[in-house]
Amino acid sequence: MHLSRREFTRLSALGLAAQLAPQLRAQSSDRKIGYAIIGLGRIADHFMRGIQDTSNSKVVALVSGHPDKAARIAAQYGVPTSNIYNYENMDRLRDNHEIDAVYVALPNSMHAEYTIRSAKAGKHVLCEKPMCVSVPEAHAMIDACKAANVKLMIAYRCHYETTNLAAVKLIRDGALGQVQQIQSAFGFDCGPKEWRLQKPLAGGGPLMDVGIYSLNATRYLTGEEPASISAYTYSNPKDPRFATVEENIAWITKFPSGITASCNTTYGAQMEGYFRVYGSKGWLEVNPAFVYDGLRLTAEYRDDNGKFIKLDQPNLEKDPIHFTKEADHFSKCILENKTPQSPGEEGLRDMTYIREIYKSAGIIMA
Amino acid sequence: MHLSRREFTRLSALGLAAQLAPQLRAQSSDRKIGYAIIGLGRIADHFMRGIQDTSNSKVVALVSGHPDKAARIAAQYGVPTSNIYNYENMDRLRDNHEIDAVYVALPNSMHAEYTIRSAKAGKHVLCEKPMCVSVPEAHAMIDACKAANVKLMIAYRCHYETTNLAAVKLIRDGALGQVQQIQSAFGFDCGPKEWRLQKPLAGGGPLMDVGIYSLNATRYLTGEEPASISAYTYSNPKDPRFATVEENIAWITKFPSGITASCNTTYGAQMEGYFRVYGSKGWLEVNPAFVYDGLRLTAEYRDDNGKFIKLDQPNLEKDPIHFTKEADHFSKCILENKTPQSPGEEGLRDMTYIREIYKSAGIIMA
Repeated sequence: MHLSRREFTRLSALGLAAQLAPQLRAQSSDRKIGYAIIGLGRIADHFMRGIQDTSNSKVVALVSGHPDKAARIAAQYGVPTSNIYNYENMDRLRDNHEIDAVYVALPNSMHAEYTIRSAKAGKHVLCEKPMCVSVPEAHAMIDACKAANVKLMIAYRCHYETTNLAAVKLIRDGALGQVQQIQSAFGFDCGPKEWRLQKPLAGGGPLMDVGIYSLNATRYLTGEEPASISAYTYSNPKDPRFATVEENIAWITKFPSGITASCNTTYGAQMEGYFRVYGSKGWLEVNPAFVYDGLRLTAEYRDDNGKFIKLDQPNLEKDPIHFTKEADHFSKCILENKTPQSPGEEGLRDMTYIREIYKSAGIIMA
Repeated sequence: MHLSRREFTRLSALGLAAQLAPQLRAQSSDRKIGYAIIGLGRIADHFMRGIQDTSNSKVVALVSGHPDKAARIAAQYGVPTSNIYNYENMDRLRDNHEIDAVYVALPNSMHAEYTIRSAKAGKHVLCEKPMCVSVPEAHAMIDACKAANVKLMIAYRCHYETTNLAAVKLIRDGALGQVQQIQSAFGFDCGPKEWRLQKPLAGGGPLMDVGIYSLNATRYLTGEEPASISAYTYSNPKDPRFATVEENIAWITKFPSGITASCNTTYGAQMEGYFRVYGSKGWLEVNPAFVYDGLRLTAEYRDDNGKFIKLDQPNLEKDPIHFTKEADHFSKCILENKTPQSPGEEGLRDMTYIREIYKSAGIIMA
C-alpha cells in the first residue's frame, strides 16, 4: 500500500493513522523531515550535529541575523545558500517545500514570535525551553499552531533521554515503593556577557533557563502536577550581573499524593544538575541528570523478595545523542501524524508553575 | 599557683578565668567530671562508651526505670549499685557529691522535666537534642539552670566533630566565596514500635528527631539565623505509624544575607543525612554528615590564585568519637567555668525555628 503525504494526513484526520502506522513507518523511512534552524547559537550547533545521526531528519535551511555565520554553517551542513533566511524575510519559509519544520533556538523572549511566524508559514515547530517568557505567550503559541494545523513540540531533551527515562521507569515499576520526597538542583556561574542576564531577552533568570529542568523533572518523576509552591529568591545587589534577572531561587512543591520536592537554581554558583528521589523502599539519584552526556543513575532499594538491589549505571552515550533522540521523535510525530510527548501544553504547564514560583518569591511575571 | 574550685569560680565571675585558664587546665587535668546518665537507651550507650576515652569525664551514676538493665550496665561501667537511681528518687542526686553533671538521654518530652530536676539537684546538665518539645519548656530549662547556677549544654554532636568543623572552616575562610544556597536532608524508615512515633513521648516527628540536624547545620554553615521559613508536610493517612507525628517535612529557609537553604526530613524513607553548600567559587558536600562515623567531605573550588582545588576527605575516626569530644567539651566548660559552645540558648533557637516550620506546614506546637 502506498499513500501520498496528503492521503496520509486525510486518513489521520479520520482516525485511521494509528492502524496504518506500521506500514506507513516502513514506507516513510526514506523520507526525511527538513528542518529550518532559527537562531545559530550553541544549542543549535548541538541540534544540527544531533540531527545528522537520525534517519528521518535533515537540516535544509537556516534563519539568522548574521549572514557570515549563516554562510559558514550552511557550508558545514550542506545547506544551499538559497535556503539561508534572515529575520525579515523568514516568512517566505512558506514557499519552500523542502522545509517541513523549524527548530526555534533563539533567546527566550523571541520564542513566541518566531513560533507563531513559523506556524503561519505552515511549518511544524520544535521550540527550545523555556517555551516563552509568559503564560499568555504560551497560549498564543498553542493557538497559532492549532490554527495553522501544525505540530508544536517543546524541546524537553530529558523526556527522550535514556537515563532520565530509566529513572522514571524504576519509579513507575514501584522499585522505590511510595515516593516520599525529591531533591533537585541545576545552576551555574553565569558569565557577565551572556544574553541570559538581560531580562528583555531572557524573560527571567536561572529559573527559566536551568531551574526549569528541576521543575520539569519533579513533574515527570512523580507523574503529578504541583498542588502548591513556595519560593524564596535572592540576588546580590552589588553584582551587576543581576540587575534585571534573579541570581538564586529556592522552592518547594507539594504534589497531590503528598510528595514534596525541594529545588534550587542559581546563576551565581556551579551547581551540577541532579535529582534524588526517596521512597519507602529505597532511593535513586541521577547525577549529573541534565547535561548533554555523562549521566549516571545510582539507586539502592529492596525488591519484592526483600533482596537488596544496588544500581550504578553510567550512561556512555555521547553528545549529541539527546538531540538525535529529540529530533527523531518530532520527525516521527510529523511523519506519523502523532502528538509529541512534550507538546506545547507541556511547556504551558511549566510556564504556569514558573509564574507561581516567581509570584511566591515576589517577582511578577505575565 | 593553686586554686580551689570555689576560688576558681569566684575568679571567673571577676573575669579573670580566661587569663588563668592555662595553669588551671594543667592543674585540673587530674580531676574527672562525674556524670549521672539519665535514660539508658541506645544513645546513652554511645555516650558511656565515648566518655571512657576522655581524660576529664567518667560515668559515676545511672538513673533508669529498669532496675535489671541498670544493674547490668552499672556492672559494665564500674558504677557502684549505690549509685543507681530511679525516676522517683533521682532528686537525691543532690546529696551525691561524686556527681557533677547529668546526661539527659530520655525521650524528648521528658527532657525539660529531668533537666529542671537535675538543675534543682545542683547538677550541670548535658541534654540530648531536641532540647525539649516546646518553646516555653526551653525557656523554663534555661531559667532553671541559671537559677541553680549550673551549666546547660545541648548535645549537638556535630558542633564538636572534625568533618563538620572542617566544612565550617572552609566556608569561613572564604574557600567557596559568597555562599549562595544549601541543601540538606536527614531521615530514615522508622520501625513501627519506636517511641519516636508517639507524640506524647516524641513531641513531634522526624523534624524534631533528625530534621533538626539539617536545621542546625544550615545555621552553623551560614553563621546566620533564619529570616523566614516556609514548609510543607505530608503523612500517609493509611500508615498507622503516622497517627500522631508527621511522616515528611520539606522546608526552605531564607537567611539575612540572602542565602537560601532547602531541607527534607522523613520517617518514611531511608534518607542519608548530608549537606551541600554552593558558593560563588565552588561547592562542598559532607555526605554522610550526621551519623556517628564514616563522614566524608568533598569539595571543588578555585583558590585565590585561580587554582582548581578538589578535596575528598574521608573521616576515619570511629564511633564513639563524637560523644568523646562532646563530653570532653562539656567537662572542660565545667572545670574551667566556661559557657559551652552549644548552650541552652542554642537549643532554644532551634525550638523556635522548629515551631516556625511546623506552623508554616499547618502543625501547631507550643
